[in-house]
Amino acid sequence: MERYEIAVIGSGPAGVSAALNAKIRGKSLLLFGSKQLSDKVLRSEKISNYPGLPDISGEELVGRLQKQLVEMEISVTEEAVTSIYPMGNFFTLLAGQKEYEAETVILTGGAGTAARIPGEEKLLGRGVSYCATCDGNLYRGKTIAVVCDTPTMESEAAFLAELAGKVYYLPLMKNSTLSGANVENLHSAVREIQGEERVSGVVLADGTQLAVDGIFFIRNSVPPAVLLRNLKMQENHVAVDRQMHTNVEGFFAAGDCTGRPYQIAKAVGEGNIAAHAAVEYLDSRKNSAGGNYAD
Amino acid sequence: MERYEIAVIGSGPAGVSAALNAKIRGKSLLLFGSKQLSDKVLRSEKISNYPGLPDISGEELVGRLQKQLVEMEISVTEEAVTSIYPMGNFFTLLAGQKEYEAETVILTGGAGTAARIPGEEKLLGRGVSYCATCDGNLYRGKTIAVVCDTPTMESEAAFLAELAGKVYYLPLMKNSTLSGANVENLHSAVREIQGEERVSGVVLADGTQLAVDGIFFIRNSVPPAVLLRNLKMQENHVAVDRQMHTNVEGFFAAGDCTGRPYQIAKAVGEGNIAAHAAVEYLDSRKNSAGGNYAD
Repeated sequence: MERYEIAVIGSGPAGVSAALNAKIRGKSLLLFGSKQLSDKVLRSEKISNYPGLPDISGEELVGRLQKQLVEMEISVTEEAVTSIYPMGNFFTLLAGQKEYEAETVILTGGAGTAARIPGEEKLLGRGVSYCATCDGNLYRGKTIAVVCDTPTMESEAAFLAELAGKVYYLPLMKNSTLSGANVENLHSAVREIQGEERVSGVVLADGTQLAVDGIFFIRNSVPPAVLLRNLKMQENHVAVDRQMHTNVEGFFAAGDCTGRPYQIAKAVGEGNIAAHAAVEYLDSRKNSAGGNYAD
Repeated sequence: MERYEIAVIGSGPAGVSAALNAKIRGKSLLLFGSKQLSDKVLRSEKISNYPGLPDISGEELVGRLQKQLVEMEISVTEEAVTSIYPMGNFFTLLAGQKEYEAETVILTGGAGTAARIPGEEKLLGRGVSYCATCDGNLYRGKTIAVVCDTPTMESEAAFLAELAGKVYYLPLMKNSTLSGANVENLHSAVREIQGEERVSGVVLADGTQLAVDGIFFIRNSVPPAVLLRNLKMQENHVAVDRQMHTNVEGFFAAGDCTGRPYQIAKAVGEGNIAAHAAVEYLDSRKNSAGGNYAD
């Protein structure tokens, strides 16, 4: 398997900035994200404080970033990374059923990824799952809730509907529905996940209570601390130092996931710093005696 | 005297980014710098890693920033701040013979400002000076060296030549000369400043030794720790936390002066963060009981 030098997770302003710099510095690179790069930027009507591009629309900025990536020959890998495992000298990244390897990771997941529903963290791995492929089989014939926030990931919800006995489908997109006799389409937000030892039910925004054996969050991005166990958080954000190092060696973070202000300029700056720090880390490893190189 | 809410020192990418955000947040603002904003950016042939503006020339980027400042009705105060004094609730800024007051300061002086010549720090205030107006009179009839790095500040060197008995003029600009019977124009860099109790001489790059009573550095920007006494430095850079706070309350720093990477994207991000931190600081003071408001 090809082992990349830098894997950038997220294609918003921080991820694009990190990717540009990794590429310029000649590192082999994976950029995980979506072709539209960033829903949040795309939906911005007018951005007035990004230096050099006054009063630009989010759509135009995304267009410019897409063009810049093409010109720099950086492609976007349209897969959602669901788990990352530190392997000593490198990381293994799981994206659905695919595996990737990278020496360093720059996480730029956005701030929304850190938000949790009451009960979500407590019952994680005990009925709360982020990965249809990984955990779907455990719910064969059972009753589950499926929350989906990304149109391109509806197929994962459909996969779960094939396995489960009963599915409460809770898409965050207005027009998304799932077909199947065992599917109940409900357009409602989840207020709470219930259960002591394991998930026993969910409470919807309107107070409706549903008895379920499990709940899947099919999200474009996964909470950082779920993505990588032992990643140190600070008040719901990834804890980083001034060079965007996290507490895990070789693992960096940038953009909204590291904290306020949630600003494009800040994200772009941090992506730049994180890429430089990753390059420095890679180069220092290569320049060292090489004793810690297992391959 | 009008007291501004935010004074931004330096008009490079960090300063412009800070100023845009201060203005958007409705704060009264002083932006100290030059009309050409940043010599360093201006001299960049091609910038390839600034997200949204691929392969832009430094000249074009400066033009875009200038236009953005005009559109936002932000003017540049073309004066060099030479000293800053903390006054409890606010800061007094000295620019030549003018005084300004600001509740907060965002220093974006660039990295070059931190570079020192051997002997410079040791003999500061004992023959080493950064301010012709402040210290010129002390050298009436004496022999001095004058280093000047900015074309627009040659008048300060000329002012010193009127006072001093003998001037060794050491401009960093190729075509700069000073007229006067007492002036010796030497185009050479200073390698070392000599002296124990006080400055006794300087050594030039070629080894030439000149006996002088003092040396003036006429610079566009002053080393941060000279600008504000007690400002905490870390390895030649201003020490800041993730929100760009320095060790002095109400005093923030952003851009190259805070450390590597020396990148436009990083500077722009830090300027954004510093402005948000300054706004937060101002708002928290106004929302508090007001007991520490002396005016």
